[in-house]
Amino acid sequence: MDQLLFWLVPVASVLALCFALYFHREMMKESEGTPQMVKIAAAVRKGAMSYLKQQYKIVGWVFVGLVILFSVMAYGFGVQNPWVPIAFLTGGFFSGLSGFLGMKTATYASARTANAARHSLNAGLRIAFRSGAVMGLVVVGLGLLDISFWYLLLNAVIPVDVMTPTHKLCIITTTMLTFGMGASTQALFARVGGGIYTKAADVGADLVGKVEAGIPEDDPRNPATIADNVGDNVGDVAGMGADLYESYCGSILATAALGAAAFIHSGDTLMQFKAVIAPMLIAAVGILLSIIGIFSVRTKEDAKMKDLLNSLAFGTNLSSVLIVIATFLILWLLKLDNWMWISCSVVVGLVVGIIIGRSTEYYTSQSYRPTQKLSESGQTGPATVIISGIGLGMLSTAIPVIAVVIGIIASYLFASGFDFSNVGLGLYGIGIAAVGMLSTLGITLATDAYGPIADNAGGNAEMSGLGEEVRKRTDALDSLGNTTAATGKGFAIGSAALTGLALLASYIEEIRIGLTRLGVAEIHSGGEAISVQDATFFDFMHHYDVTLMNPKVLSGMFIGSMMAFLFCGLTMNAVGRAAAHMVDEVRRQFREIKGILTGETEPDYERCVAISTKGAQREMVVPSLIAIIAPILTGLIFGVPGVLGLLIGGLSSGFVLAIFMANAGGAWDNAKKYVEEGNFGGKGSETHKATVVGDTVGDPFKDTSGPSLNILIKLMSMVAIVMAGLTVAWSLF
Amino acid sequence: MDQLLFWLVPVASVLALCFALYFHREMMKESEGTPQMVKIAAAVRKGAMSYLKQQYKIVGWVFVGLVILFSVMAYGFGVQNPWVPIAFLTGGFFSGLSGFLGMKTATYASARTANAARHSLNAGLRIAFRSGAVMGLVVVGLGLLDISFWYLLLNAVIPVDVMTPTHKLCIITTTMLTFGMGASTQALFARVGGGIYTKAADVGADLVGKVEAGIPEDDPRNPATIADNVGDNVGDVAGMGADLYESYCGSILATAALGAAAFIHSGDTLMQFKAVIAPMLIAAVGILLSIIGIFSVRTKEDAKMKDLLNSLAFGTNLSSVLIVIATFLILWLLKLDNWMWISCSVVVGLVVGIIIGRSTEYYTSQSYRPTQKLSESGQTGPATVIISGIGLGMLSTAIPVIAVVIGIIASYLFASGFDFSNVGLGLYGIGIAAVGMLSTLGITLATDAYGPIADNAGGNAEMSGLGEEVRKRTDALDSLGNTTAATGKGFAIGSAALTGLALLASYIEEIRIGLTRLGVAEIHSGGEAISVQDATFFDFMHHYDVTLMNPKVLSGMFIGSMMAFLFCGLTMNAVGRAAAHMVDEVRRQFREIKGILTGETEPDYERCVAISTKGAQREMVVPSLIAIIAPILTGLIFGVPGVLGLLIGGLSSGFVLAIFMANAGGAWDNAKKYVEEGNFGGKGSETHKATVVGDTVGDPFKDTSGPSLNILIKLMSMVAIVMAGLTVAWSLF
Repeated sequence: MDQLLFWLVPVASVLALCFALYFHREMMKESEGTPQMVKIAAAVRKGAMSYLKQQYKIVGWVFVGLVILFSVMAYGFGVQNPWVPIAFLTGGFFSGLSGFLGMKTATYASARTANAARHSLNAGLRIAFRSGAVMGLVVVGLGLLDISFWYLLLNAVIPVDVMTPTHKLCIITTTMLTFGMGASTQALFARVGGGIYTKAADVGADLVGKVEAGIPEDDPRNPATIADNVGDNVGDVAGMGADLYESYCGSILATAALGAAAFIHSGDTLMQFKAVIAPMLIAAVGILLSIIGIFSVRTKEDAKMKDLLNSLAFGTNLSSVLIVIATFLILWLLKLDNWMWISCSVVVGLVVGIIIGRSTEYYTSQSYRPTQKLSESGQTGPATVIISGIGLGMLSTAIPVIAVVIGIIASYLFASGFDFSNVGLGLYGIGIAAVGMLSTLGITLATDAYGPIADNAGGNAEMSGLGEEVRKRTDALDSLGNTTAATGKGFAIGSAALTGLALLASYIEEIRIGLTRLGVAEIHSGGEAISVQDATFFDFMHHYDVTLMNPKVLSGMFIGSMMAFLFCGLTMNAVGRAAAHMVDEVRRQFREIKGILTGETEPDYERCVAISTKGAQREMVVPSLIAIIAPILTGLIFGVPGVLGLLIGGLSSGFVLAIFMANAGGAWDNAKKYVEEGNFGGKGSETHKATVVGDTVGDPFKDTSGPSLNILIKLMSMVAIVMAGLTVAWSLF
Repeated sequence: MDQLLFWLVPVASVLALCFALYFHREMMKESEGTPQMVKIAAAVRKGAMSYLKQQYKIVGWVFVGLVILFSVMAYGFGVQNPWVPIAFLTGGFFSGLSGFLGMKTATYASARTANAARHSLNAGLRIAFRSGAVMGLVVVGLGLLDISFWYLLLNAVIPVDVMTPTHKLCIITTTMLTFGMGASTQALFARVGGGIYTKAADVGADLVGKVEAGIPEDDPRNPATIADNVGDNVGDVAGMGADLYESYCGSILATAALGAAAFIHSGDTLMQFKAVIAPMLIAAVGILLSIIGIFSVRTKEDAKMKDLLNSLAFGTNLSSVLIVIATFLILWLLKLDNWMWISCSVVVGLVVGIIIGRSTEYYTSQSYRPTQKLSESGQTGPATVIISGIGLGMLSTAIPVIAVVIGIIASYLFASGFDFSNVGLGLYGIGIAAVGMLSTLGITLATDAYGPIADNAGGNAEMSGLGEEVRKRTDALDSLGNTTAATGKGFAIGSAALTGLALLASYIEEIRIGLTRLGVAEIHSGGEAISVQDATFFDFMHHYDVTLMNPKVLSGMFIGSMMAFLFCGLTMNAVGRAAAHMVDEVRRQFREIKGILTGETEPDYERCVAISTKGAQREMVVPSLIAIIAPILTGLIFGVPGVLGLLIGGLSSGFVLAIFMANAGGAWDNAKKYVEEGNFGGKGSETHKATVVGDTVGDPFKDTSGPSLNILIKLMSMVAIVMAGLTVAWSLF
């Protein structure tokens, strides 16, 4: 029965891919509109694809380097699992593929959405949302497919006779984690590179176009406008897809590894197997419910803005409610020990995700006081807008942190049978809460990817000179996307924190395996020698003295906190530099190419696209490499306690910093929109100019540095896990 | 011999106070200049004093509340040391007194400095610097006086017969720590209140005066100009004084407590006594060397800017070099175990302080590339200035963090005899490094307090219509102050981090005492029962499971990181709100009082002073109370592991955040000055306007939120220490 249940996982993943293909085909049947619309869409598509090609080339070299390193470690020195190099590669490949497919669909969908919006709002919504759903389903489908594939493969090839079945599952699950590192590495480059690209183009386009030349957004006279639209695709679609692919797989794999570890002592191989497949099953059921949710999104033909929002909310809420019921059902079917309370941990994760999303909405939507007051502060100029926005962003960290803390404690207590000393099951509870949060990713990601598609549709409509009415409809779709994005961000950031915690525990498991591989049989805890195989989390903490009074732990924590800031600083500066190049180019075109501003000559869009591409490529390498090198170096210098300090310092500071940056950026964006809606003087007033400064500052906050931190948190953990063997070997050496 | 050596401590403290009095008298003999100068100085003095009176009133109520709470805990429930309420009061009193005396001197000195500058640069420097020295010497003098007084008193009144002498010193030193909490509480209100006051006035004056009305800084036509000058005194003098008084005492007391704890097992009471008085002796010698350094600051009559800088640098460098030699000497005289290596720990602290100061200078001075590039980014408008400044500030956290990490490890290893497991002595080493960093506070604080005096002198010269030449001299003095302030900030922030770490260890000592008071005889570590008296730091860590896998520790860390951001957000918003009131008032005066801008009518300065005072009073309460309540609540909910997590999370995030904010703010300030020096278009250009926005945003960064974080870090630890008895009692209950 249980073995049979497992097959739900590959089935659900294939189903997700089939529906993705179906939605893609349906969308492709629609018309792309006028020749001008087709031309613009093609230009954006070409720019996006050429960027992605460049990015994959650079990332390819990084992968080659890392695979060589892993191979030397695995086959040369034997401090690494022999499957690691291959698993690492597939993780990177599938993560990249998710981004690629999602982006390809998005670039085909934008003109079609704009064209459909010529007929009705509802038609536009349908195309944009279902194209977003392609991305959502591809991510979850490929993720679970990769997981099933490796699970079945490793199960078949790892011989049972060299170890007990109990330990076999531990080896399998921790090996699978390394494909998570492949996904993380790909995701980091996608997020950082895409984030720099999109904001360099955006800031460049705004500074010269809007501020200096005084032409509106997406105006075809602005040379950077195609690059700006390309940026939405490479940053918000491909980057976001790779990011969430990684969170999704990371949380499932970390939880599976924790499940294997939690039952290592009991010798109950059946229960261990159940604990391993439980997160996969929840994810599989989540896929099915996401598909149902996606189909439930429809509106009346004469839908108003509010109806649109309600229909999207209906879809996600339906999936959320159904997953709660389905979780209890599936864990009961599985007859997992303590299934009822573990199901409650899943619910905790879902609820925390929703709370963070709501809190984000409260702090960043112009429907609420905080953002309205931010607009008001624009009356005293740009300086007060910046001060108030930073203040707002910092205050907005309180609710999400408290929600996560309550979530940690509650999911831990539920899963551990209300016993704080039952660390193994408690941590499993935290992991499964992360899985719960991401279980309906298929549909939440659809609402997220929908945003940039609607945004691009608006750009296309504007540049193709479609009527006022059409532009108004695409604006409504765009604005809806901004609201749903808030919830999506909450899930991305909350899941990063919980997944990061679950990965910490996996790190300890990896240390156990590393010690075993090196022939170390015993560790010391409280003066006693304990066999490595039987040692608990506590024993490892005591053996390595991972307490808060160990200067190595403290040093690691300081470095971890610093890493979060350093990484943000590097990406902020990267956007600044890349944007400056764009500004120079746009100014040059206005100066040298006559007739651009009168609309007689077409600007040289391609050069701007090339500049953004080059800038992003150049700038993404240093921050990404630092994220990979820091945990390795810390491990070599400070050993296991230093690495754990680094990870937790990075996690706690990075999480808070990420929320601060995302919310400050979001609030600045909407504060500007609130003024544009006619408040405090409206468009063109001094207050408006002040809020435009806030919006420009907020761009790298919310779309480059903030989201990249999510991945930094997870990637550092992943690197630590994969390098655990080296750390252990080095400290023994 | 050793007992004799101790008397050096009170003698040095009295000597410091005598020299402070001497410098004060010398300064008072000088002329205050023209009647207009006298009038302006009197107005500033009156405003400053009336602010301080208001502040002490509110702080008084908070102290009454806390003393009642402590009394109930001590005399009612017996979960608190009976000396705590009184010690707490004296700490608050002396901290306030330091600020008061320093500020009184500063407000008398500014007009005299301006007047002396009419004759020569050198005369101006002499008065301003020696008046700053009054503050430096009052702080260290009162600090050591309070320490000697309590040491002698407790030594006399605590009966030997109830406990072994070994434990007696532990009781004495941990009791004395509670006067540190009094100082912290006072300091927090002084920093937060003063910081809000000064920046509300500054931002208000700049936004309406400079930006809207187009009149220069310190122009008498600006109604907020007196309030602005008052702000420099209450924020940068009184606030800084209370802050560093607290750091100074905190580091000495925490190290003394660690010294008492480190020798608790050996039963060697003599060595324990030596370890306790060693930090006091280093501080005492530091006072004597500071006085020598202060006297060594002289320049030639025709001194240039560079000579001035050199002469100040000569004084501080002389003191630093001498203290290194003196430390080896005094610890050798004391015959402290391992004296040579412990002296090396002192040197480590000094070096770390200097590195942080140099790094601050590099990132914030317009003589170096980072700030110059920041000015350059002004060419593309205010948004890029903000983006680049935030990027710069974040990058600038790397060097200080790495310096502190190396400092932690080196001082720990030196003092522990290169044995990581010798936690007691290792932590003592970290504490003594903090003492080393602050040992020459007498002179470093003098160079710091000198800054606002020179600034006010400039203001006075401008408002009194003194000639161009005089204004140029006061500008030179002011600019020198900005440079020396960088080093001062390095010491303030670095010492906060190291003191924070030392206080963590004191917290464990306080837990030990709390358990003893409650009659708990044994704790459990690694399955064994160990007597509370003999338990090591490790044992406490194991008993309470303060490891990184405990969800309570993790929760505490998340909350700690969040506290740093929340606190900053609250203070940023407070400045924003208070500044908005000031803007409204200044606009009202320009509108309603005719003839202000033509210079015919005098504006209503006093109303602006009153508005700033009121704003600061109202706004300082919430952030300050949150800082006090958070550790208490965390202790009640999550117990000892949660509190330690909170403290370390707050320490690591807060330290990095504080450096980021201070450096970003400093760089914005100087980027504006660099443009004003004629680069990128000079004064009045668009680039200049963009950098003015940066400067305004940087004001609360560098003068309100950033410095307040230093105190937040220490205050949370102090509160945790004082409340340790309650936490323990509650968790047993």
